[in-house]
Amino acid sequence: MIYLDNAATTFPKPETVYKTMDDTNRNAAINAGRGAYRLAREASKLIFDTKNMIRKLIHADSSAAVVFTPSITIALNEIINGIEWNKGDCVYVSPYDHNAVARTLHLAEQKQGIKVYLLPIDTDTYEIDIEKTKYEFSRNKPRAVFCTHVSNVTGYILPVIELFEEAKKYDAITVLDSAQSLGLVEIDSKQMKADIIAFAGHKSLYGPFGIGGFVNVGNIILGVSIVGGTGSDSLNLNMPEGNESKYESASMNIVAISGLYAALQSLNQKEIYEREKLLTRYLVNKLESVKGLKLFVPTNPDKHIGIVSFTINNMNSEDVGIILDEEFDIAVRTGYHCAPYIHEFLGDCTFNGTVRVSLGINNDYADIDRLAEALNEVLV
Amino acid sequence: MIYLDNAATTFPKPETVYKTMDDTNRNAAINAGRGAYRLAREASKLIFDTKNMIRKLIHADSSAAVVFTPSITIALNEIINGIEWNKGDCVYVSPYDHNAVARTLHLAEQKQGIKVYLLPIDTDTYEIDIEKTKYEFSRNKPRAVFCTHVSNVTGYILPVIELFEEAKKYDAITVLDSAQSLGLVEIDSKQMKADIIAFAGHKSLYGPFGIGGFVNVGNIILGVSIVGGTGSDSLNLNMPEGNESKYESASMNIVAISGLYAALQSLNQKEIYEREKLLTRYLVNKLESVKGLKLFVPTNPDKHIGIVSFTINNMNSEDVGIILDEEFDIAVRTGYHCAPYIHEFLGDCTFNGTVRVSLGINNDYADIDRLAEALNEVLV
Repeated sequence: MIYLDNAATTFPKPETVYKTMDDTNRNAAINAGRGAYRLAREASKLIFDTKNMIRKLIHADSSAAVVFTPSITIALNEIINGIEWNKGDCVYVSPYDHNAVARTLHLAEQKQGIKVYLLPIDTDTYEIDIEKTKYEFSRNKPRAVFCTHVSNVTGYILPVIELFEEAKKYDAITVLDSAQSLGLVEIDSKQMKADIIAFAGHKSLYGPFGIGGFVNVGNIILGVSIVGGTGSDSLNLNMPEGNESKYESASMNIVAISGLYAALQSLNQKEIYEREKLLTRYLVNKLESVKGLKLFVPTNPDKHIGIVSFTINNMNSEDVGIILDEEFDIAVRTGYHCAPYIHEFLGDCTFNGTVRVSLGINNDYADIDRLAEALNEVLV
Repeated sequence: MIYLDNAATTFPKPETVYKTMDDTNRNAAINAGRGAYRLAREASKLIFDTKNMIRKLIHADSSAAVVFTPSITIALNEIINGIEWNKGDCVYVSPYDHNAVARTLHLAEQKQGIKVYLLPIDTDTYEIDIEKTKYEFSRNKPRAVFCTHVSNVTGYILPVIELFEEAKKYDAITVLDSAQSLGLVEIDSKQMKADIIAFAGHKSLYGPFGIGGFVNVGNIILGVSIVGGTGSDSLNLNMPEGNESKYESASMNIVAISGLYAALQSLNQKEIYEREKLLTRYLVNKLESVKGLKLFVPTNPDKHIGIVSFTINNMNSEDVGIILDEEFDIAVRTGYHCAPYIHEFLGDCTFNGTVRVSLGINNDYADIDRLAEALNEVLV
């Protein structure tokens, strides 16, 4: 199988991730706890160390709270339902955002009366229009701005630094969804002025399913929305205070955390970025040579990484995916990719969404050649 | 190490769980999806099959919705925040319940104005007082009744059949927390009149961390509280309809699910129950022979399984745990075990909670002998 669905989850992971997880499963898969027996203390230490590696990766201070959750979706639910909204608050979100943000904001719209606005984009380049954004912010002052770092549909690297810079002029809370970028694209949390950075373990970090979270760089006050046992302060019917444990209910998934630890240890972000950038250019060039494809590619290659979406004239995207799978053993993802807003702008709805090709560290030029050949055969 | 902390998480798991997880990690750890490529379809099939095994285990119809979540805590949050409460609704909960229920109900008390009542217990036997419960129900009619099946503090098997029978006279919603019982104690969802059964993969089912959920046997209407991408109906800013996917945001943890599948395949509930019952009796007898211990053991041995809590005169329970760990390499858990209500009745707060010994399939008589010897040495 040629795996080109790395935006759904990177696969395979580095060997060390598998080895570490199996080892943890067999020798140390117990419930963490500071005051308990040796293995439980070691689990707590591993959690502590892994959080430190996350901090380091985004250049955050040691005081920044790192909250571990079972997925970035849970993290974003805790963030969005944790912010103390006032009715009528203006919240901006990029049209590239995922349903983990979009649906959660929509629920807050219904339940808490916030107002959600899409950040404006240039309809020729599909890029965020910063000048228009400035105008929109001046008309409806932002209480919070949510932005995905890299689009999981087109691979577009969004201008989060400029965007959050503008947002901060209004003291807005800035939240970055780094699901497709952390471990791939450099994130300097301070330079970026991101208050909260949500992350997924199993995507561009090459960790396993079952671990995600958020870093509260800006020390934003968050209420609790998901609660449960914490193994601490158990007689208290409220969650314990503390800027991490307050948001960390349930047993920690130490097996997944050990996998993330191994992934972080072996991660070479710069190298992955350089290689994936070359592969992305190669992929774009190859696909541009296939007749009948419409590509949705950022015009500036410096703002593009890892993912290419396209449609094929007169073909349902799902059918393209099925043919690639059944006849060529090539795995891509088709449809709307859990990104609800952007398709109206891309105009791919008549094709039932796009065919999405997403790269990872295990892909090479031959994979891309094979994909292009397959598409040429499909189109004959 | 002698591991006697199986109520926190069972350890080790059956070999097949480790093998299957490692195999899935290496060969099939992709994002499930019905319409996608072969591996994604196989992942969906595995999820489907695992849900069927859960249904079978509790004798539920094939129409009963099985929702997979990353943990039973997330499941209980979805249940408690999903029920459409009216202000003033009377909700009963057993004093043995865990903070995954207790804190979540407490939050609903604060946010939605429900009233939480503790089910009455007999202060001599620490058992639920069914007659008093009947009286309480008649005074304050129950809208919902939450009950843990087996106490994670004392191993007491609660009288859920009688309790839910009474609750159903008032058409109350009945919710069972089976974290410590599923896979160990027989659950017939129909006989039990449980509307919703929440379960944890990593405890008495011998599956891994990262997978839990609930079975909506009674087809209770639940709103959504945790939302995100579902890989389906992506243009819809609301969660898709459907009694499972509506509550299943984020990528499915297929590695954990495969581990649960393997655990369920190898599970022999009857055999485990019989063996653990014998071990529990042996443990109680052994501990009763140690002078200076106060045991919190249900008087009727048929209502007791797997867990024994005790305190030692003039000793902080945490210190007992540390000595057992450091001097004897015996792992127990000490403190309040995330059960906030029951300690007031047990009277163990002056000891900072109990020392808890919890058994699993890997324990034998020798482990118990060693524990008793160690305690005798501690007490000399």
